[in-house]
Amino acid sequence: MPALETAYDQLVSCFRRRGALEEAAGVLHWDTATLMPSGGAEARGEQIATLNVLSHELLTDTRLSDLLDAAEDDVSALDAWQAANLREMRRSWRHATAVESRLVAAETKAASRCEMVWREARSKGKFGLVVPALNELLGLVREVAAAKAEALGCTPYAALLDQFEPGGDVEKIDAIFADLAAFLPAFLQEVLAAQAEAAKPAVPKGPFGLDRQETLARDLMTRVGFDFDHGRLDVSLHPFCGGVPDDVRITTRYDEKDFLKALMGVLHETGHALYERGLPADWRLQPVGQARGMVMHESQSLLIEMQACRSAAFVSFMAPRAREAFGGKGPAWETDNLVRLINRVAPGFIRVDADEVAYPLHIILRTRLERALIAGEMAVEDLPAAWNEAMAELLDLTPRNDSEGCLQDIHWYSGAWGYFPTYTLGAMTAAQLFATAQRRIPDLMDRIAAGDFSALLDFLRREIHSRGSSLSGEAILQAASGSPLDAEVFKAHLRTRYLPAG
Amino acid sequence: MPALETAYDQLVSCFRRRGALEEAAGVLHWDTATLMPSGGAEARGEQIATLNVLSHELLTDTRLSDLLDAAEDDVSALDAWQAANLREMRRSWRHATAVESRLVAAETKAASRCEMVWREARSKGKFGLVVPALNELLGLVREVAAAKAEALGCTPYAALLDQFEPGGDVEKIDAIFADLAAFLPAFLQEVLAAQAEAAKPAVPKGPFGLDRQETLARDLMTRVGFDFDHGRLDVSLHPFCGGVPDDVRITTRYDEKDFLKALMGVLHETGHALYERGLPADWRLQPVGQARGMVMHESQSLLIEMQACRSAAFVSFMAPRAREAFGGKGPAWETDNLVRLINRVAPGFIRVDADEVAYPLHIILRTRLERALIAGEMAVEDLPAAWNEAMAELLDLTPRNDSEGCLQDIHWYSGAWGYFPTYTLGAMTAAQLFATAQRRIPDLMDRIAAGDFSALLDFLRREIHSRGSSLSGEAILQAASGSPLDAEVFKAHLRTRYLPAG
Repeated sequence: MPALETAYDQLVSCFRRRGALEEAAGVLHWDTATLMPSGGAEARGEQIATLNVLSHELLTDTRLSDLLDAAEDDVSALDAWQAANLREMRRSWRHATAVESRLVAAETKAASRCEMVWREARSKGKFGLVVPALNELLGLVREVAAAKAEALGCTPYAALLDQFEPGGDVEKIDAIFADLAAFLPAFLQEVLAAQAEAAKPAVPKGPFGLDRQETLARDLMTRVGFDFDHGRLDVSLHPFCGGVPDDVRITTRYDEKDFLKALMGVLHETGHALYERGLPADWRLQPVGQARGMVMHESQSLLIEMQACRSAAFVSFMAPRAREAFGGKGPAWETDNLVRLINRVAPGFIRVDADEVAYPLHIILRTRLERALIAGEMAVEDLPAAWNEAMAELLDLTPRNDSEGCLQDIHWYSGAWGYFPTYTLGAMTAAQLFATAQRRIPDLMDRIAAGDFSALLDFLRREIHSRGSSLSGEAILQAASGSPLDAEVFKAHLRTRYLPAG
Repeated sequence: MPALETAYDQLVSCFRRRGALEEAAGVLHWDTATLMPSGGAEARGEQIATLNVLSHELLTDTRLSDLLDAAEDDVSALDAWQAANLREMRRSWRHATAVESRLVAAETKAASRCEMVWREARSKGKFGLVVPALNELLGLVREVAAAKAEALGCTPYAALLDQFEPGGDVEKIDAIFADLAAFLPAFLQEVLAAQAEAAKPAVPKGPFGLDRQETLARDLMTRVGFDFDHGRLDVSLHPFCGGVPDDVRITTRYDEKDFLKALMGVLHETGHALYERGLPADWRLQPVGQARGMVMHESQSLLIEMQACRSAAFVSFMAPRAREAFGGKGPAWETDNLVRLINRVAPGFIRVDADEVAYPLHIILRTRLERALIAGEMAVEDLPAAWNEAMAELLDLTPRNDSEGCLQDIHWYSGAWGYFPTYTLGAMTAAQLFATAQRRIPDLMDRIAAGDFSALLDFLRREIHSRGSSLSGEAILQAASGSPLDAEVFKAHLRTRYLPAG
């Protein structure tokens, strides 16, 4: 007679089913963004909604709650990974059950309405158009935040952050962002002054054939470690990394006039893809087998793109390949010129176009404002003025209209509040992990200059990817680098890269 | 206060969810066959299996059985479509609950094992290799057939057929196939004799660029009525029609040496796609909104391919386009020559390569043998000898080995028993519907010669596609054509097309 299934075993079956449903939804999302014909949208919406509802029902089934209690009573019978898996199951359950389904449905609806109005408001540059929809959505987001705060035992903003960065610590983020806000504006001016003393980098002239761009992108992806037996590269309007760990699919958008844009984007998404691909295979479909959070995810994309591939070492590897791909000749194609072009600092209004130095300032601005809005300390109507004031303070720029101001990003208007900090925390984590990798692999930059990423990838697989969600993001970083997140490492990276040695 | 939901309404919600799950699985199947990297197979298997299990659980939930009983008690409250929907719900329920899940699982496993062994046996031409696996599978299929026969109140073979052709009548099929078996062998010799008197058609010389083949295929698909806002054309190893009605995806495989192969295949799949696309939009995701069965489905592909697009009228439209696409010149590219080439009769061993005259003989052979095997009147071990004997009788050919004999088709080895008759019933239905369309649209062939399919498509939309599963296949054919399936119409079509007028 077979032994009775334990509560934990039953939970594993249930979450395995949920994991497979979420993977299925992930593939459908990818298809929607890459190649679905427009007429398929409504049917696709219902397919994905059905998978989401079923996945939610699995979590909120009352039987599951009993199983979690029973498994936790018997946690001593579990090994460390199983215990971590149980902890993550409880975490998913808390988020799913904290909010009444009536409220979830109202928020989803309001978000989709607000996003639609936002598209119009942004294209017309009229913030006023979206105020009613945003007010309605913000009201519901605040209700959700309050409910999750109670379930998680934290502040409402921390509860929102926790959706994207499990266990994210708002006080630590405050301290780190205050540090950066004190450092970056002056540093930025220093970098601009230094840049002004040198000649402007030349820009390679296109057009750059899309086929050739793709061939070069695939070649470099493969060098970095992407395995095309377990993934794809396709085209979509907004680049992203989707699919599932055993079939990771990244996308890009080619620009005939600028091959570096798509190429750097592809390398960024490759970093995300390597993380997904390296998650612990023994824990596929289980909560503990998933990526740790958006900070760690962004750290992996930025480590590959910003730390490794925008380095002079990698550009020296890439430059001859780019010249060969496009028949490039002359000073614009020299490695030194390309290094300066790829790392050009040029502050502007738009976050997604920002360079590495200005980027955190865009994030600090958004974090401040969303915290005030969630706390009820600021009215939606006051957003444009507050935005422009903060832009002047942090970046010394004044948007000419709200489309290049508070209307530029989709996040708030689609309901993603508490997400923004993860970008900059990811950039800092990337710098810290890359500094560690350089210490551990003394010839790392020579290897990168030779297009050899194997040692770096081994390091990331071992220290980050294979850990899945077995530890907190903080603990993973601490174990890998020997210290908690440290703004000094990020600042040192910026100084080394953007100020003349001297 | 809202009115209480009726049992029927609750069934509609449940089947809507099931429909969305099946659509999701359909998109994943398409992805698997067209562009999934090999390393994604295992994860994909689990995703699809999970969707199938959930779909099955929805049907076998005991609550559903109560709802069906309650709705049937109150059937007078339903309109005709709702009542038909309820009937189809019961039909799905009967098939799902007739067989214990233990047996379903055993059959699925045995089928996947047998299919694997079959691939090896076929490539080596050794039937003996697959005998044990096929014996095991056949045993389980017979158990399933017996269980379904009891639930449906019919014979085991009829129960298997019912999975593909709801309500298919085995006695009528027997009579029709006996008629064809008496007619076709002699007719085939007559056609071959007539063909031998004329010169052999010339074959256009390739290579035919794949891009040009695709462009021509898309052009003709559009002419026939395929809407690329609601569908796609892609490449896969085995051509099929997949996706969902609002996003129908057909595939093909191009051959550089023979453009007609892929082109005729694309037009065949376009017929399937038009059927899916034309299913009643008000009944999407409901059982009554689905295609009626494989006979009607095959009739739609064969009506477009065999009846319309292999006609001299359509070839006269296609020929100048093909000449332009490939720069074709000379006698091989003349319309008359292409008509003769496209309709060349040349009996061989392989069903999928068979012409329209020989094809039913391949089907009659398979139907005889699978009925004997299911009835337990023949042993698996005797299959090769019985196959070769029937080939000699029906087609006057003797396979040189089992790879071109009883090992050629995947159906039996993957568990699809009772499927074969639908091919020929579909071909006959196509002939009958096309004859009706020619009566109703007196200038139909002139329109087709001008590349104008709108009147034909209107006819099919109205008489076939929009009916979904509201009536039996037989009733749909009767309503559209004024008579039940009539072998004489099919024979008349063959005479007109393949014998010289005289």
